[in-house]
Amino acid sequence: MIRIAIFGFGAVGQGVAEILMQRERIERWIGRYEVVAVADSRGSLCSEDGISLKEAIEVKKRGSLPEGKSVMEIIESMDFDVAIEATPTNIETGEPGLSHIRACLNKGSHVITSNKGPLVVAYKELAELAKKKNVKLAFEATVGGAMPLIKLAKRDLAGNEIISIKGILNGTCNYILSRMEQERLSYQQILAEAKELKIVEANASYDVEGIDSAAKLVILANAVMEMDATFNDVEIVGITSITPEAFEIAMEKGYTIRLIAEASRDGLRVSPRLLPLHHPLAVRGTLNAVLIQTDLAREVFVIGRGAGKIETASAIISDLVDIYGNDRTN
Amino acid sequence: MIRIAIFGFGAVGQGVAEILMQRERIERWIGRYEVVAVADSRGSLCSEDGISLKEAIEVKKRGSLPEGKSVMEIIESMDFDVAIEATPTNIETGEPGLSHIRACLNKGSHVITSNKGPLVVAYKELAELAKKKNVKLAFEATVGGAMPLIKLAKRDLAGNEIISIKGILNGTCNYILSRMEQERLSYQQILAEAKELKIVEANASYDVEGIDSAAKLVILANAVMEMDATFNDVEIVGITSITPEAFEIAMEKGYTIRLIAEASRDGLRVSPRLLPLHHPLAVRGTLNAVLIQTDLAREVFVIGRGAGKIETASAIISDLVDIYGNDRTN
Repeated sequence: MIRIAIFGFGAVGQGVAEILMQRERIERWIGRYEVVAVADSRGSLCSEDGISLKEAIEVKKRGSLPEGKSVMEIIESMDFDVAIEATPTNIETGEPGLSHIRACLNKGSHVITSNKGPLVVAYKELAELAKKKNVKLAFEATVGGAMPLIKLAKRDLAGNEIISIKGILNGTCNYILSRMEQERLSYQQILAEAKELKIVEANASYDVEGIDSAAKLVILANAVMEMDATFNDVEIVGITSITPEAFEIAMEKGYTIRLIAEASRDGLRVSPRLLPLHHPLAVRGTLNAVLIQTDLAREVFVIGRGAGKIETASAIISDLVDIYGNDRTN
Repeated sequence: MIRIAIFGFGAVGQGVAEILMQRERIERWIGRYEVVAVADSRGSLCSEDGISLKEAIEVKKRGSLPEGKSVMEIIESMDFDVAIEATPTNIETGEPGLSHIRACLNKGSHVITSNKGPLVVAYKELAELAKKKNVKLAFEATVGGAMPLIKLAKRDLAGNEIISIKGILNGTCNYILSRMEQERLSYQQILAEAKELKIVEANASYDVEGIDSAAKLVILANAVMEMDATFNDVEIVGITSITPEAFEIAMEKGYTIRLIAEASRDGLRVSPRLLPLHHPLAVRGTLNAVLIQTDLAREVFVIGRGAGKIETASAIISDLVDIYGNDRTN
């Protein structure tokens, strides 16, 4: 019996809960399980025998979870095998996720996280701690949402040397730029449209300034390319100064403009770059797209949904199967 | 010590040998190994202590391997842990690969193959035999060359239901169609050009009639979608009747034409289809591109080199690491 704790119960945490409610499907992959705790920043539902996820979701819909143990109290007082850490990202302090992950690893629980902050701030420390404690720290959901980018680069391309990783890691920027390409409107006009459609959050600066892309790039650089990178190592230019005229000139020559994050031995960079209109990375809409350049397989592109409640939750589930599942490759 | 036998010593077999000569690189992944036999259809080099791959490649360059044990004699008389089966594909009989793979699995060796024939003819039998003998049958190289398509769909998207797999599985057809798109020349003109550039073999019918794509689709349907499909289940239309006028009309509407192989619960189909010019599957040149449609992660595209000596060999190496390697996902 696998005992699961879910920390953070926003869109991603609830998405995980919704998938875990499909018990028949998931038990085919990992066998029997119970969720013994669900906690958000204000409260929690806990039971050693397993809580009702349906109830947790319904309670959350009406407000927040009932007052109860905090995440740290749950970690200290309850037994669980794997923690799903889905609290909000803070890339400056890594908190509260960093303390949660550290405490879980220290007590010998596996951790699966969608939270970029702790990995941006302390990847090396956490990876070494997981190794020392002989547990897994899995984080497919932190980069590229539903795209199995980390597993693909680290495992499926085994035997290859990874020369560089580059691509589109932020769907909001890609939406804005591909709309500018199609409509020839200004950045401000498209941004306003995107906010109206709720594709972009009210405060979009984290996305459009390239910060979100840079955070993801740091995780890729450390996890896949075995660099020892921090956020300050990334040279960052966002998309706010791109004009319709720039698109005009680019497109006359058969190019478009996308915000590209790139990690190579030359360093880490997030910046608007020209791409041939027919380049596989020149995707439209909110898609993410990444090119993994290797020495044997050469170019491998992966494209998919970089965000979304169920999409991101699916990456967490794939990590869960990875830890507990039967190998189905044969 | 892992003892490897290589059966078939054409481009792919030699590509594998070239990579295995990079001993330091490969031992980092799988530990110590020796290649104890290399065989082609006319001869072989064998030694229980390990042969020189450099010598094997040099000898082969001057003609064929020296007279010696046949593949079946090697399987019967030598000890090895894993066979790399890279003999030429025959999708009607599956031979000679089918007999090789059957004999290797029966004696308890793992098998890694780039040969589509045996899997098209007898996927179910071979998969069950491998399971019964508790050995691995790995075949990433049979579909999509260097693209880690099978591992991605079967393992990285664990927890998902695969709804359909569709895409471009033959680089030759894609080269011809994307040149027709760009140049507005006839199929015959582009085919002649491609033959001159040696992108297309003298006898291209296996490619352009859609047979190669259909064979790969059968493997995907069986291995990834757990269907029980045979070659005769595939409805096949090739690309030989596509006219420049068809491209003209398609492109006026913002579409292009590609040869798409698709497996879904509705059946198996290989046929020229319209794609929006900006669709991620509308790749150019000899690339392969596949869309895996799932219920949770939704659309995941993978694009890469579907052929090439080292590229295809890299898929075989990734299978080898998969069988013997340390898990590097943590």
